Amino acid sequence: MNVELAQTIERLGQNARRASRALSLATTDQKNAALLAIGRSIEQSAPEILAANAADLKAGQDLSSAMLDRLRVDPKRLQAIADSVRNVVLLADPVGETIKGWSRPNGLQISKQRIPIGVIGIIYESRPNVTCDAASLCIKTGNAVILRGGSESIRTNLALVEVLRSGCHQAGCPEDSVQLVSSTDRTGVKLLAQLDRYIDLIIPRGGRALIEAVVSSARMPVIKHFDGICHVFVDAEAQIGMATEIVINAKCQRPGVCNALETLLVHEKIAPKFLPACAEALWQQGVEIRGDQRTLSLLGEKVLPASEEDWRTEYLALILSVRIVRSLDEAIDHIEEFGSHHSDAIVTEDEFAAEKFLRSVDSAAVFWNASTRFNDGGEFGFGAEIGISTDRLHARGPMGLEELTSYKYTVRGNGHVR
Amino acid sequence: MNVELAQTIERLGQNARRASRALSLATTDQKNAALLAIGRSIEQSAPEILAANAADLKAGQDLSSAMLDRLRVDPKRLQAIADSVRNVVLLADPVGETIKGWSRPNGLQISKQRIPIGVIGIIYESRPNVTCDAASLCIKTGNAVILRGGSESIRTNLALVEVLRSGCHQAGCPEDSVQLVSSTDRTGVKLLAQLDRYIDLIIPRGGRALIEAVVSSARMPVIKHFDGICHVFVDAEAQIGMATEIVINAKCQRPGVCNALETLLVHEKIAPKFLPACAEALWQQGVEIRGDQRTLSLLGEKVLPASEEDWRTEYLALILSVRIVRSLDEAIDHIEEFGSHHSDAIVTEDEFAAEKFLRSVDSAAVFWNASTRFNDGGEFGFGAEIGISTDRLHARGPMGLEELTSYKYTVRGNGHVR
Repeated sequence: MNVELAQTIERLGQNARRASRALSLATTDQKNAALLAIGRSIEQSAPEILAANAADLKAGQDLSSAMLDRLRVDPKRLQAIADSVRNVVLLADPVGETIKGWSRPNGLQISKQRIPIGVIGIIYESRPNVTCDAASLCIKTGNAVILRGGSESIRTNLALVEVLRSGCHQAGCPEDSVQLVSSTDRTGVKLLAQLDRYIDLIIPRGGRALIEAVVSSARMPVIKHFDGICHVFVDAEAQIGMATEIVINAKCQRPGVCNALETLLVHEKIAPKFLPACAEALWQQGVEIRGDQRTLSLLGEKVLPASEEDWRTEYLALILSVRIVRSLDEAIDHIEEFGSHHSDAIVTEDEFAAEKFLRSVDSAAVFWNASTRFNDGGEFGFGAEIGISTDRLHARGPMGLEELTSYKYTVRGNGHVR
Repeated sequence: MNVELAQTIERLGQNARRASRALSLATTDQKNAALLAIGRSIEQSAPEILAANAADLKAGQDLSSAMLDRLRVDPKRLQAIADSVRNVVLLADPVGETIKGWSRPNGLQISKQRIPIGVIGIIYESRPNVTCDAASLCIKTGNAVILRGGSESIRTNLALVEVLRSGCHQAGCPEDSVQLVSSTDRTGVKLLAQLDRYIDLIIPRGGRALIEAVVSSARMPVIKHFDGICHVFVDAEAQIGMATEIVINAKCQRPGVCNALETLLVHEKIAPKFLPACAEALWQQGVEIRGDQRTLSLLGEKVLPASEEDWRTEYLALILSVRIVRSLDEAIDHIEEFGSHHSDAIVTEDEFAAEKFLRSVDSAAVFWNASTRFNDGGEFGFGAEIGISTDRLHARGPMGLEELTSYKYTVRGNGHVR
């Protein structure tokens, strides 16, 4: 274990805890002033940020072109980052909100109020916009944040965090409201995850190895932003045109995201009418189809055979697995067995089937006659999201400002004793 | 590692996951029928349960009398256990409740609905009533539960779980809704905590060693029910009579519980008038006082000197540490530094001071002119509680039926695509 790194991370934790106490008591105006200052600073520091990003791109020339694209910040993307920080100013501050209030028969007045969570650790991979998005949502909700981004974007992140800290400082909020783990040593992830003395919540966003590193070491609550093996079930009573549109949208509009479609389930009664045309439309979009035996028989040799592994795979690419099922129950069982409880949809005109599906499928968001792509904080009207939780406790599905808060009870009496 | 135990626990997990899916879809009537059947079975099986308890008491003859008392089940206590299960029938079922519903400008209808958490592991120490209380709250909320009680009460727990399972069976709910880890090997705790494939939440209730064993191995969310280092701050503007009553109640009414008072903070302006009489009342109740230097000067040699260790100690006994502070801010700082964020109170007539205290003290429940003993599910009106969470995420403070639920979004569209 790297002793120096351990000491550095311990110090980040102490600083964050101290900052969090002050930030938790900051007014909405103060927090908004910090966000506005950050927006200005991003624009003013554009040359430094772009230069840092150019250095990251140069150092990463061996990366795949997809990764380089995620890493790249150009003037337009930087403006979008600044605008996105300013957008958070416009959102309502959940801190201080009374969630519920009631009086007891003995006269005690109880009030349940939103408060910040405290200190949040966010561990993520390449995209530098996450640095500013995550930090601005944490600032707005009065949480101090410790960021640990990918090593490819370290120079860009250092430049962005400089700007974030200076914005906080300009508005009289603690600079240590935002800190970055500047070492790219992977041990840092484990060290952060062990620091439950100072960190109240860890949010890992990324692939299996990152999630596993966090989950196996974490002593504090973890809210994972993990995989989405999402399904659309085209029921016997589906409108064929609607079903095709939803399938195409869910699979093709943005195949690399967690709420994109991975497995299409089709009721055997509608399969002969629906599947050939839908497959044609998918092929036109460049989608590779992998099917079960019955799908192969129906669609012919353009379809590759699907193995059980396919049902468990999040392709994040223009590949779709397809299975024909005998019933609604078989579709539900398939989703419960192979899905990741993320986003699943039924297309049907049969209200009874739809309600059964909505009730029985245990996923963060279950859709009736709508694309799985709507499982998203923006589409839900949350204004912004820190991501989509694949966990069940505290936050499930799109995680907006409210999900970045905890609560406490304040109780007012008049000399009450038991 | 004990391979056989690992296999047993893996099987418990698989059974629980299977049961949880059926139980999550059970109607309120079915779940209530199971609870009523359990109440009847407890009464009918009284001879077996009392015999098992007698065997536990015999095996535990070397235990302290306090522990033996916690372990003992007599006919009256058994009746109370049955009544408490029936009480859960009367509580509203939170599952299926719409927490929030809204429409988006594009016409999508979004509804946030309570669902069961899934499978809950509860790890606790001696008292056998926890077995039935915890299981009945889990059944009511549609959660399968795996119980792991203390080794002293294993025979009683086995008898009780038999009754719980038979009650489920009689009502057509899965028997495996309730399971007990029948091995008292301590490795079992670690094995459970690693089983995130099947267990969605672990709730440990107990001392430091138990909590540490769970926190250091757990891969799933943990909601700790841990220590309460609770404070009462008697402000300069307190009513002296009210302050004395609250201090005596918070310290003496039930000193062994987590919301009992451990440290009294007194504003220096009121100390000379308040402390001598309050100390007299405490001594009459048999309370040992440990004070800081100024308290010693004021109260004389009946007071023992308090060390810094005292400020960090949960006595759970008739011992009280006392410190005189110069200001409200010093009181708040003391609580934030040494407290456990459980239950803290201010006694004052000064509304400004009270509101500052309520806002600044970051505890699960913060009281103004009321005893810390009110931090309790029953006193809050929750009807029942699984315990008092000392964590910040998902559930903080009294944990009732609502806190045993998660949620999902159901989204209804009309062919919506992005």
